Amino acid sequence: MLAVAMYMALLACLQAQELQGHVSIILLGATGDLAKKYLWQGLFQLYLDEVGKGYSFSFHGAALTSTKQGQEFIAKVLESLSCPEDVAPGRCAELRGQFQQLSQYRHLRTSEDYMALSKDIEAQLQHRGLREAGRIFYFSVPPFAYADIARNINSSCRPGPGAWLRVVLEKPFGHDHLSAQQLATELGSFFQEKEMYRVDHYLGKQAVAQILPFRDQNRKALDGLWNRHHVERVEIIMKETVDAEGRTSFYEEYGVIRDVLQNHLTEVLTLVAMELPHDVSSSEAVLRHKLQAFRALRGLQKGSAVLGQYQAYSEQVRREQRKPDGFHSLTPTFAGILVHMDNLRWEGIPFLLMSGKALDERVGYVRILFRNQAYCAQNEKRWVADQSQCLPRQIIFYIGHGELGSPAVLVSQNLFRPSLPSKSWKEVEGRPGLHLFGRPLSDYYAYSPVREQDAYSVLISHIFHGRKDSFITTENLLASWVFWTPLLDSLAHEVPRLYPGGTENGHLLDFEFSGTQLRFSQQQLEQLVPGPGSAPKPSDFQVLQAKYRESPLISAWPEELIAKLAEDIEATAVRAVQRFGEFHLALSGGSSPVPLFEQLATRHYGFPWAHTHLWLVDERCVPLRDPESNFQGLQAHLLQHVRVPHYNVHPMPVHLHQRLCAEEDRGAQMYASEISALVTNSSFDLVLLGMGMDGHTASLFPQSPAGLEGTQLVVLTRSPSKPHERMSLSLPLINRARKVAVLVMGRMKREITMLVSRVGHEPKKWPISGVLPSSGQLVWKDPVKSFCDGDTSFVGRAVMEVVQTIQVL
Amino acid sequence: MLAVAMYMALLACLQAQELQGHVSIILLGATGDLAKKYLWQGLFQLYLDEVGKGYSFSFHGAALTSTKQGQEFIAKVLESLSCPEDVAPGRCAELRGQFQQLSQYRHLRTSEDYMALSKDIEAQLQHRGLREAGRIFYFSVPPFAYADIARNINSSCRPGPGAWLRVVLEKPFGHDHLSAQQLATELGSFFQEKEMYRVDHYLGKQAVAQILPFRDQNRKALDGLWNRHHVERVEIIMKETVDAEGRTSFYEEYGVIRDVLQNHLTEVLTLVAMELPHDVSSSEAVLRHKLQAFRALRGLQKGSAVLGQYQAYSEQVRREQRKPDGFHSLTPTFAGILVHMDNLRWEGIPFLLMSGKALDERVGYVRILFRNQAYCAQNEKRWVADQSQCLPRQIIFYIGHGELGSPAVLVSQNLFRPSLPSKSWKEVEGRPGLHLFGRPLSDYYAYSPVREQDAYSVLISHIFHGRKDSFITTENLLASWVFWTPLLDSLAHEVPRLYPGGTENGHLLDFEFSGTQLRFSQQQLEQLVPGPGSAPKPSDFQVLQAKYRESPLISAWPEELIAKLAEDIEATAVRAVQRFGEFHLALSGGSSPVPLFEQLATRHYGFPWAHTHLWLVDERCVPLRDPESNFQGLQAHLLQHVRVPHYNVHPMPVHLHQRLCAEEDRGAQMYASEISALVTNSSFDLVLLGMGMDGHTASLFPQSPAGLEGTQLVVLTRSPSKPHERMSLSLPLINRARKVAVLVMGRMKREITMLVSRVGHEPKKWPISGVLPSSGQLVWKDPVKSFCDGDTSFVGRAVMEVVQTIQVL
Repeated sequence: MLAVAMYMALLACLQAQELQGHVSIILLGATGDLAKKYLWQGLFQLYLDEVGKGYSFSFHGAALTSTKQGQEFIAKVLESLSCPEDVAPGRCAELRGQFQQLSQYRHLRTSEDYMALSKDIEAQLQHRGLREAGRIFYFSVPPFAYADIARNINSSCRPGPGAWLRVVLEKPFGHDHLSAQQLATELGSFFQEKEMYRVDHYLGKQAVAQILPFRDQNRKALDGLWNRHHVERVEIIMKETVDAEGRTSFYEEYGVIRDVLQNHLTEVLTLVAMELPHDVSSSEAVLRHKLQAFRALRGLQKGSAVLGQYQAYSEQVRREQRKPDGFHSLTPTFAGILVHMDNLRWEGIPFLLMSGKALDERVGYVRILFRNQAYCAQNEKRWVADQSQCLPRQIIFYIGHGELGSPAVLVSQNLFRPSLPSKSWKEVEGRPGLHLFGRPLSDYYAYSPVREQDAYSVLISHIFHGRKDSFITTENLLASWVFWTPLLDSLAHEVPRLYPGGTENGHLLDFEFSGTQLRFSQQQLEQLVPGPGSAPKPSDFQVLQAKYRESPLISAWPEELIAKLAEDIEATAVRAVQRFGEFHLALSGGSSPVPLFEQLATRHYGFPWAHTHLWLVDERCVPLRDPESNFQGLQAHLLQHVRVPHYNVHPMPVHLHQRLCAEEDRGAQMYASEISALVTNSSFDLVLLGMGMDGHTASLFPQSPAGLEGTQLVVLTRSPSKPHERMSLSLPLINRARKVAVLVMGRMKREITMLVSRVGHEPKKWPISGVLPSSGQLVWKDPVKSFCDGDTSFVGRAVMEVVQTIQVL
Repeated sequence: MLAVAMYMALLACLQAQELQGHVSIILLGATGDLAKKYLWQGLFQLYLDEVGKGYSFSFHGAALTSTKQGQEFIAKVLESLSCPEDVAPGRCAELRGQFQQLSQYRHLRTSEDYMALSKDIEAQLQHRGLREAGRIFYFSVPPFAYADIARNINSSCRPGPGAWLRVVLEKPFGHDHLSAQQLATELGSFFQEKEMYRVDHYLGKQAVAQILPFRDQNRKALDGLWNRHHVERVEIIMKETVDAEGRTSFYEEYGVIRDVLQNHLTEVLTLVAMELPHDVSSSEAVLRHKLQAFRALRGLQKGSAVLGQYQAYSEQVRREQRKPDGFHSLTPTFAGILVHMDNLRWEGIPFLLMSGKALDERVGYVRILFRNQAYCAQNEKRWVADQSQCLPRQIIFYIGHGELGSPAVLVSQNLFRPSLPSKSWKEVEGRPGLHLFGRPLSDYYAYSPVREQDAYSVLISHIFHGRKDSFITTENLLASWVFWTPLLDSLAHEVPRLYPGGTENGHLLDFEFSGTQLRFSQQQLEQLVPGPGSAPKPSDFQVLQAKYRESPLISAWPEELIAKLAEDIEATAVRAVQRFGEFHLALSGGSSPVPLFEQLATRHYGFPWAHTHLWLVDERCVPLRDPESNFQGLQAHLLQHVRVPHYNVHPMPVHLHQRLCAEEDRGAQMYASEISALVTNSSFDLVLLGMGMDGHTASLFPQSPAGLEGTQLVVLTRSPSKPHERMSLSLPLINRARKVAVLVMGRMKREITMLVSRVGHEPKKWPISGVLPSSGQLVWKDPVKSFCDGDTSFVGRAVMEVVQTIQVL
């Protein structure tokens, strides 16, 4: 079908002031809900703001609707446009009339339609002798339509030389990192980065848009406060009372994290957390700092989230999507997420993100709560709000709704009197009886906008002025997906906690954090969803005792076994320090001991680290800072969390004279003499070993004689896998230890564990079989039997994580 | 004068049950205030508790008072003794009668008196055929009388073989570490440690005495909570409404820190903070763990305290001590102290200690406030006290008085329901309208003692049962003084803030912390005390600019200069990391850079430590763990507080092959090649130097050619002072640095600074004069001129701490 163009006489608008040139704005999806509710009004507002400043405009509403219907729709929408309060009704009607004259509807589908549109614009420009300033294409269409439209714009509808093109895109921008990247790549083949404006309408919300200006204008007061030493937590919250009824087809695919957290709340988070550029009016600087903030986000894990689903949701999905009666959705309609940032400004400070449907109130806010670092010498009855440093101190960007009913910025009076632009923000009038965030409103300096503005009006103005920092760049978008996708993947099969909805939720959705873990405050005893999830918990199983290689062996689920091993090590350490004043611990590398290191670092306050010497069992011949280095793992997971004196840490000297494990550097001998000098009888208090699938332990490999016998304490060896060159404690040295623990993790190790359980003392074939301390009693612990002889379906799920500790006393 | 012994017939008490033997209790100072108010009642209580259990008793009130007066006094006191509520009046009179019969007064002064006492006891034992169980001497006398009494007891009054001796001592136990040690040494020459019971009556307060049992009986609930991850702060508070009127002669000498904090509050602190022994009934284990807690206390500095003095105090002192009109006391009557513990359980958690006279209320408590780690999904209006984890969670040991009016243990209901011994603790009845610590009483599980007991009664019972953990051992006492004495010394000339007293204090005494610093929340603009103290503050002086050795030199007060230097170093580091990805910083040892290290460790969270390499400018040829080692200082003051990766720390290899700086170990060459390999052009980004009084810098000494010129980067040198052997960066290497800063502290350095300001390039005489980077601009900063040309009285006070930074750009 050919496009039908409808022209309106525009001569009336040709005035001398149109020096800045002409801007054509094409609203794609002009008859859709968003356009009807916000976008036409936003365009009208833009016209009102800018028409007196030397631009001329034409507005093209485009859609797939037939011309006639489209025209009627547009005419109706334009009739309902409103002016700001301070414009007199007569003047408003006049302005609306001008805007109507500049606006037209056109059916836009084929490439010919786009070519025709472009020609019409050019003809109009020529006819009126106007210079073209630029074209804005606003994509208010579903994402599947993006590619076609983009191709047509790029090939047929670009403005002439010297004029700019801006395309405005609406979310969703993909479903995960991969799809977002595909979409970005596709769009990138049609448009330059600078031409694309991805809308997150939260960035147009007045309280959100005020975050950076507020930080900038109150730099002096905030400078010392805006960091981990003074901030206790940041809450970024969007609560809804509505549910997803009528939208379940969209919602089933997205869920609350993709719908609200990945975009709106994450954007807000970066505005709060980013380093403030010297010049906040520089889009480039803002975007660069924002991207740095994204990169400082610590990766999320399953334990970083709590998920909920309002009780009626599955039924709504069944009804709307015609699902069978037994269908239960796993889509979360509520999520709480704990975010940490890995930088010195925010390290350790919890950023709590939360959003949900069917909650007890509709409200959005960002709350920065400062630590209470004061002691008030008088009885609390005598505390005065603007003076007492013991009352809560907080800054709240109140995005809207809630008990306050409008956007606002609140600053506790005991913090400082903030500076806000008096043209656009005014003090909130008193509201006796209103309590917000634990304090009466009168405890705050409170400001609300002089004129409330819709987010889309704000953003349309920013598009027009090229303020890219109010939009999502490709880098920003992908960084956000890089952050969220692993969590979304790991949560895909999680069963959300069911909640009744509204005030009935009680404390059911309250959650709390401990370290990096989040959990619901109230334990739930029964599984509310009868769904597929619910794996058995480690605590359901006891530690099991058996025999392994003729000695006692204890098996347990990983968490419990790691906890037990850590306890044993601490007890051994405490005894050693009591008896000898020091504790010599030799540790293996690799991934197996990582949970053990973490356990020791975070749970064992009594550990005598100041008197502990840490030695390496083996090392790869790589620089110590190499990610492959065993020492690097020790550094990352243990050393940086505990206080071992520098000189008690003994990395293996694999990198002497700037070369790796050169025989002539005598690194092995050097380590051996260090051991001889510091460790009584060269007898470590505890050696922690691992076991490889080929039966190797430390870096002592089958069929390789080095270190299996003889007098050398430390040897250079050769591994069958890369990096080949290794340094290792020798078997005779290991066997001088007072205690040896062998930690074996992973399903892959099952075969070798069972094999080794049957072989004799054959260290040349299986070096691990040579672990036999010259004094002391032998104790093994074997999980394999216990778990593998059981229910096989259970083995499939569980053994993957089984840990074995084989402990030689 | 001879002692007069008064005997009473005791045959009535001779019963078959007296199998445990006889105990003689001698109360020295039996006519004093303490005895009258508490001790006789405590002894009577002991009698009531123990007489049925197989002991016989005699009570000897002793003093210097004449026999007649003493007898009358005692008779009066004994007449007023009361029984517990549950003893019927008739029975009570009977028991009191028995006790009166067992009690006598005796004048006790000369050694003959003591010999007579001992003989009388022996005679009585023999007469009645009793076995002696032991003797308790309760010293309720001023400390100056201790030595004589102790000597007499030791030489003439020890019990026979097989019976124990216990001497009970009352504070003050010295005035500082030295005097406490002298007193302890003196007492130690008369008594064994196990014989001495030093009383801190706070340890007998029921709520205090309940701390360890509470921790023990609620182990399971507290195990995960009682640490830095869950506790937000601990407050240990003793507020008084009374002032020091009538006691100023004592108070002027002691002040609030010695009177209350060094003893009572510190004891309570250790009970809260110590690791809980497995067996809390073991005195030995409790005392050992308590001592460990003392040793984990981080040293206090001037900035750890805020001091106040109620306004009427100086006038009271003038009146009572007959001081001249112009006299102003500096004795604090109010102190707030911030304590930190250097262990993994409590690191970073503030312990706030506060006590004062003339405050708005009388109350004592220990409050453990837990972190709020929850987010509550409902509006705060709907939070329920026993369920919401967002309401405050706290445990309070309420020592007494205050609005509650009795000792109590309070546990927030949203925490857990505590277990307390139901025999001795009962639930507190509701008190509508009573708010404590921000919440209504009904929000707590609240318990108070079934029977309120006076602290002295409790302690006398503990003495009798040999429960040494309720008393202050010599080690404990000295550890406390080791902790407090440096602070007391540093505060000796501080001017306390004046406060009006009572509720008038308003927010004047509120204080707050930031890092390790404490300060009053309200800034005070005027000096309230016109007295002698009030040294000018660093902030009163600008950073001064001048010339030194023909280059710019900036001087300032120590704090300001250190702050500025730290800022400069951070800026240099950030720039270096931005440009090159890493920052190479070479640091000198000694005491001068310590405040700089501390500034960097606690104030500069933007410092790119993860990308910083730390090198040593010089090192003493001692093992790295030797207190003399420069590296050891770096470890203690910087490394243990920041996160520099292990392999970015480069101690000098002065201890290779277990020997010190042997030429043949080629340590200097090894360090040089490490520098060459890692530092581009061997050009450090910043070298921090010091300067000695002989003009040496690094370990480059006058008249010693090593390292002053030539191609060697690192050299072995010889110092005129011990330890003689050193390793040092050479002058040519130092001069390759991009930036050099020279930090000179202390009045002793004035002469050399002035001398060096005049000499030319003569490194062989004054190695410091050879510091002249081969490229870059030279900037010096010189405080000497500015401060020394000024008011000389001012110099005397100030220059001692003057810091010079001589910075070569």
